[in-house]
Order: sequence, then structure tokens, then C-alpha cells
Amino acid sequence: MPIKIRAAEIRDCDRMMELIRELAEYEKAPDAVTVSLDHFQNAGFGKNPVWHALVAKTDDGIVGFALWYTRYSTWKGTRLYLEDIIVTESHRGKGTGRMLFDAVTDEARNRGMTGMMWQVLDWNEPAIRFYNKTKGVRMESGWLNAHLDF
Amino acid sequence: MPIKIRAAEIRDCDRMMELIRELAEYEKAPDAVTVSLDHFQNAGFGKNPVWHALVAKTDDGIVGFALWYTRYSTWKGTRLYLEDIIVTESHRGKGTGRMLFDAVTDEARNRGMTGMMWQVLDWNEPAIRFYNKTKGVRMESGWLNAHLDF
Repeated sequence: MPIKIRAAEIRDCDRMMELIRELAEYEKAPDAVTVSLDHFQNAGFGKNPVWHALVAKTDDGIVGFALWYTRYSTWKGTRLYLEDIIVTESHRGKGTGRMLFDAVTDEARNRGMTGMMWQVLDWNEPAIRFYNKTKGVRMESGWLNAHLDF
Repeated sequence: MPIKIRAAEIRDCDRMMELIRELAEYEKAPDAVTVSLDHFQNAGFGKNPVWHALVAKTDDGIVGFALWYTRYSTWKGTRLYLEDIIVTESHRGKGTGRMLFDAVTDEARNRGMTGMMWQVLDWNEPAIRFYNKTKGVRMESGWLNAHLDF
């Protein structure tokens, strides 16, 4: 079944949120998703879009996506932050993740960014293997994530 | 000496970059700063600003700053990402960091964000102590930072 990568559209948001919940379950945090569809749509397609995404589509519908936003590193300058890259379980192992990752890399280069970054859970071995196979990727431990919820 | 917190202006960028280099040395990565003053200024004060900052000013000039950008969490929605909070060594221990941190928290609340996040090096004990004293902050290990430089 051919896979097509294209920019996300507002009508994709419902399905994307299903995939976000699927990833949260995989990452052992099923209750962590508190964002609403309305907020999600507005943040991506409202007056000042914060996130951008590419979706992977087959005849069955959307099977995965990559979502990113622009970050600023005071060391490296403007960079792409890859927030999520998700392929639904039944479609894994077919190269969809690689297609999405490469397309995101192209986006960052085309926008003149100096690079990109993202985070991986240290027990997520399939993801770590995937990134270890990706030329130029370096992974770094030793940082804590700090959160403050209002 | 009274300390005043105000929004950063383009003329502050030179001094801010000095402080960025000071932090990079403290974080044992003195050569990691490759961004130019021109790029830094443009990313903060050009047509599409990516970063925002508050500076701490005394009669001696700028002694610290906090720099942030908008991130999007697919779990939590629009949040503030605190990229750097720096107080120059000679001015530490006077509450400047706390003033900057509280002012950033106010910014995030006033913009209707759902919270904020940042990273801390796991050996940076003074910073970890500071955040442990801050109500509501939770710190999380187990994530790797992945980078791809172009």
C-alpha cells in the first residue's frame, strides 16, 4: 500500500489526537494527554500557528505523523524541535517512520535552520535503534526535564 | 543596589551573548556557542521573533536574563520553554534568579499557557536546589536529548 507524506490539514486533527493518545499509552502515561481537540486545532491552524506537522497517509487513512515547532538555542540558533513522531502499531516496520523523519529533516533544512533536536525515553529501544542508524544523530544523557503546571 | 526586571531590547543583545558564553563555560561546553550576534538579534527582534527575554538590570548594567520561546506539547498544549536563566557569577545569591524566574512564570500565565518547562544538568546542584525550593516544580529523569546538526 503506497504511503504519501503531506502537510497536515485541520481535518486531520481528530485522527492525530488518536495517535497522540496511542503514543502516550506506549510511553506509559495514558492520563497525561489533557489537551482538547479545539486547543490542538487552534494551535496548529489558528492565527498564530505554534506547531506544524506532516502526516503519512495510505488508502486506510492517516497511519502516522511528525509534529514540530521552532525552538531557539542560544548556543546554536534557530532549530526545529521534533515534538512527536508516531506510526500506529499496525503499520510499523514498513519504513513510514523513516519517511516522516527524512521529510522533517528536509523541512528544517529548507527553512534555513541550523539543525534539529528531540527527546527519547531511555528505555525506548526501538526508537534508540532507529536514531542510532541515522547518520549524524548524537544522543546525550545527563539532563533532567523540569515542569511547572499552572 | 536595586534590581529592575524589564523586557529585553535589541541593544541588550551584545551583553546577553556575553552571559550566554559565561553559562556555556559553566556548563562545560565553552565551544558550543556558534550563534552570531546578528542571528541572535534577528531571531529576537526581526520580522518573526522566535525568542523573548527579560533582563535583570542594576546601575552596573545587565547582570542576568531569562530567555524563552513558545513550545507545543501534544499532551499539555501551549507552554513556555525556558531556554536560559542566567545570573552573572558576581551577582549570584541576591535573589536575582528568583525575580527572573517569577517574572517568566507571570509571562506564561498572562499569555494563557498551561505551564512551562526547562532542562537542568543533573550535576548542577545549585540549580536543582533552586528548583526544588520552587512550589509545584517536578523534575524528571529518563530522557535522552537527541541532536542532528546540519
